[in-house]
Amino acid sequence: MNDLLPITVLGLGNMGRSLAAAYLAAGHPVTVWNRSADKADQLARSGAVRAETAAKAIAASGMIVVCLSTYEAVRSTIMPLETELAGRVIINLTTGTPDEARQLDTWAKEKGIGYLDGAIMAVPPMIGSPEALILYGGKKELFEEYQPVLQVMGGGTTYLSEDTGVALLYDLAMLTMLYGAWYSYFHAHALLRTANISAEMFLPYTTNWLQHLIVPSLTSPEAARILDEGDYTTAVSNMTINKLGLDNIVKSSRELGVPADWLLPIQAVADQMVAKGYGNDGFERVFESMIN
Amino acid sequence: MNDLLPITVLGLGNMGRSLAAAYLAAGHPVTVWNRSADKADQLARSGAVRAETAAKAIAASGMIVVCLSTYEAVRSTIMPLETELAGRVIINLTTGTPDEARQLDTWAKEKGIGYLDGAIMAVPPMIGSPEALILYGGKKELFEEYQPVLQVMGGGTTYLSEDTGVALLYDLAMLTMLYGAWYSYFHAHALLRTANISAEMFLPYTTNWLQHLIVPSLTSPEAARILDEGDYTTAVSNMTINKLGLDNIVKSSRELGVPADWLLPIQAVADQMVAKGYGNDGFERVFESMIN
Repeated sequence: MNDLLPITVLGLGNMGRSLAAAYLAAGHPVTVWNRSADKADQLARSGAVRAETAAKAIAASGMIVVCLSTYEAVRSTIMPLETELAGRVIINLTTGTPDEARQLDTWAKEKGIGYLDGAIMAVPPMIGSPEALILYGGKKELFEEYQPVLQVMGGGTTYLSEDTGVALLYDLAMLTMLYGAWYSYFHAHALLRTANISAEMFLPYTTNWLQHLIVPSLTSPEAARILDEGDYTTAVSNMTINKLGLDNIVKSSRELGVPADWLLPIQAVADQMVAKGYGNDGFERVFESMIN
Repeated sequence: MNDLLPITVLGLGNMGRSLAAAYLAAGHPVTVWNRSADKADQLARSGAVRAETAAKAIAASGMIVVCLSTYEAVRSTIMPLETELAGRVIINLTTGTPDEARQLDTWAKEKGIGYLDGAIMAVPPMIGSPEALILYGGKKELFEEYQPVLQVMGGGTTYLSEDTGVALLYDLAMLTMLYGAWYSYFHAHALLRTANISAEMFLPYTTNWLQHLIVPSLTSPEAARILDEGDYTTAVSNMTINKLGLDNIVKSSRELGVPADWLLPIQAVADQMVAKGYGNDGFERVFESMIN
């Protein structure tokens, strides 16, 4: 007889399936539901119970892990089931905006439903490993009660604060950094391709540049201090130099037939900063244009 | 008596002054010139000869290091002095487009002037150190002849190829990666600021995310292979998921009053890729939109 907590997982995309599989692997009774039922085939073979409806899936467990594609899908799935959900706990790992999480938490409180909102900072193959970082916001007591069970999904299970939107805010911050790094890496390689320089040939430079310049420049306490204190003085590389650098990337990309649209808003902000007389400040002053 | 090669440096911005200082420190006779003469004060006190005109500066040395703000400034400074430059060697470290470098090289060859084009992948305080990476393209024999002298400016002095534009292409590739990482880091912190989360509080997450997710994902041989072979199949995080992620960052930024203009062209490309039926491919397929 299994005395581990029964878990229900709603939503069986790549991530939802990995979450359910982690609980199965840890020995929990697992009930799963997905809008298209075929996503549950493999999990059913591994011992999960496939529920025909979301209502039946919810009835099977006290803890409901929700991992759907959007908050819109979450709302349309769970809001009609407030009666079934009363007295249970929702662990919502769906990606959405911080405000969407806060609003759903308010709704859950009104309906007597426990609610924690999490953000998974890992890809599906990492789920269940000690490295998988999963961040949570919401009622601290509830997190502490469920922490050992949440830990099954990721060793890096971390409580942030009572703000139910905070995990998605951290998620947004990390994701936007990922897209900036990723897309500019593609842009770099499109430029290199014009002279037949392959990504493999450039790999030592990519590695050296990221590890010895980009990462140290973004992870130093000094980099954090500049933003936190709004102290943009610099002796190294000022706004004027950076504006010329951006102009040069945009001009070169045009000459080489490589699109650089994503850089135009950045170039425009640098232009404005120079025009406003901040040419001798550090490039970090562009941060001011985002927070005022 | 000094038997080290006399060096002339044209252009005394932060970088030009560091280059001249490195040669002075290594014991070379150094002549400097700048459009506004006061930039040379400190160097003159350290033993540099201040030339009144670019022509006189050129006459003083066989090797002319050029580090001006733009190629336009380079052309207007040196092209009228073709007679003075004949038989000498220009080491042009000015930032410009690869085509500008190739055109200036063609001009130099016609005038009997030696020409190497370099890109400094370091900030001024690093100049002269073993870590300072300086890349060169152009005539290989010329590079080999001057390599020991070029090494004075940076231990990472590296020859790339006979393509005179290649160093600036590498420069562009690395710079665009820097701006992508840097600007998205500011965007992340503007989002966090809306919930009073400081850069200092977020620093462990910035560090962990960069070192354990972003850097490995961009520096693996597999990441290079995907671009080089155009093989965009994925089992991890497909275009549809990434499109939803981008939608979510843009939507959240709007809700929180944080500008996200730079992401709109990236979101648009992801939208197009999904609309074209590439929703199950990896996000790397956006690279195709840059190279066709």
